[in-house]
Amino acid sequence: MAVRKVYGSLNSPATLKVLACLFEHDLDFEFVPVNLDAGEQKKKAFLSINPFGQVPVYEDGGIKQFESRAIIRCMAHEYGKKGEELIYWDAKEQAILANWIDVEDHWFEPPAMKLIFEMVIKPKNGLAPDQGVVAEAEAKLGHVLDVYERQLSKFKYLASDKFTIVDVIHLPNLQSLMGMPAKKLIESRPRVRAWCSEILARPSWAKVLEMKHKAQAYAAS
Amino acid sequence: MAVRKVYGSLNSPATLKVLACLFEHDLDFEFVPVNLDAGEQKKKAFLSINPFGQVPVYEDGGIKQFESRAIIRCMAHEYGKKGEELIYWDAKEQAILANWIDVEDHWFEPPAMKLIFEMVIKPKNGLAPDQGVVAEAEAKLGHVLDVYERQLSKFKYLASDKFTIVDVIHLPNLQSLMGMPAKKLIESRPRVRAWCSEILARPSWAKVLEMKHKAQAYAAS
Repeated sequence: MAVRKVYGSLNSPATLKVLACLFEHDLDFEFVPVNLDAGEQKKKAFLSINPFGQVPVYEDGGIKQFESRAIIRCMAHEYGKKGEELIYWDAKEQAILANWIDVEDHWFEPPAMKLIFEMVIKPKNGLAPDQGVVAEAEAKLGHVLDVYERQLSKFKYLASDKFTIVDVIHLPNLQSLMGMPAKKLIESRPRVRAWCSEILARPSWAKVLEMKHKAQAYAAS
Repeated sequence: MAVRKVYGSLNSPATLKVLACLFEHDLDFEFVPVNLDAGEQKKKAFLSINPFGQVPVYEDGGIKQFESRAIIRCMAHEYGKKGEELIYWDAKEQAILANWIDVEDHWFEPPAMKLIFEMVIKPKNGLAPDQGVVAEAEAKLGHVLDVYERQLSKFKYLASDKFTIVDVIHLPNLQSLMGMPAKKLIESRPRVRAWCSEILARPSWAKVLEMKHKAQAYAAS
């Protein structure tokens, strides 16, 4: 029996972030699918593990966490492989990582998710994207990526010269954006484009995509 | 010359969180006011220290941070007084704090700030609150405070039995809510009410309010 459990959905970017982090650390875990279309995350059984009704929930040795970035920070502190940690122990370097984790949370993800909603989720449900919303979100995301382009002129990865959890938490939304017209925002910025293509090629991310493809094949069979 | 600088506004909850944390740790700092009404945070000089144009920015020994929760986490790790740290060093306990920091960020603050905008900021500018928005935000905040009421039946403070940065980051918005009709949401929940009144009585918070009052008296003189 795996000691670690992830209750989540392969359609949830937050779940995919946690899975990528587990694979980065070579950790065993059990994946417990939560059917978001059926509203399982709002039912009593699930609310008893996350009162806010969102995936993922991560369980490890009796501790339950339900905020994805909190899960990832702690996992990287607890299980970092000696010399290959995805965090820093030094206070000043930790401060920089903490700052860029919150940038992803407050600046990158909101316009990215708005674009994914308009351009992927609405069309899947037979609705047309609202072009005004799309234009506004693209402008906001473009501004964020300008900041990233400058960061990436100073560092190899977004927060430092090594790959860290700051990069990990960008993976699912970058993957989605690359399959949409908004990929022009990434491709027109050379350093962002190179960073994006390098981190999407991580073996951990390939394993997440494999899980997703297997589940899709199973659902279609 | 103070080694630490806070560029911010006494009208910004995020700035006040950082100030409360500085006072909790008895740290010297220089406060550099940024005039939000004059849009100083969107001008070139400020954008060079925070490309996202928001206060506060915190400078300590060459490191500049602009996300308030990141600043607070790192300050508490670097300057915690032996035996009175506002964080935990143990991985499992850290995981719990990290989770509740993100709860404040994602669940508590959004409806709280919506209420403050409708009930305080709009009336100050001669606008009427939108009662539909108020009702929706009160319902959301009420749900969050139900979760807090249950947490506080297990722990003395929000994330554990000791006062931590999770409590610190709630101070400014709790203070504002207590001066508005939404205080009924706090007062109708006995444990939330007791927690709120205890943490608002911290000497660190009294010092923040004193800074605010002095600045107001100076502006009015």
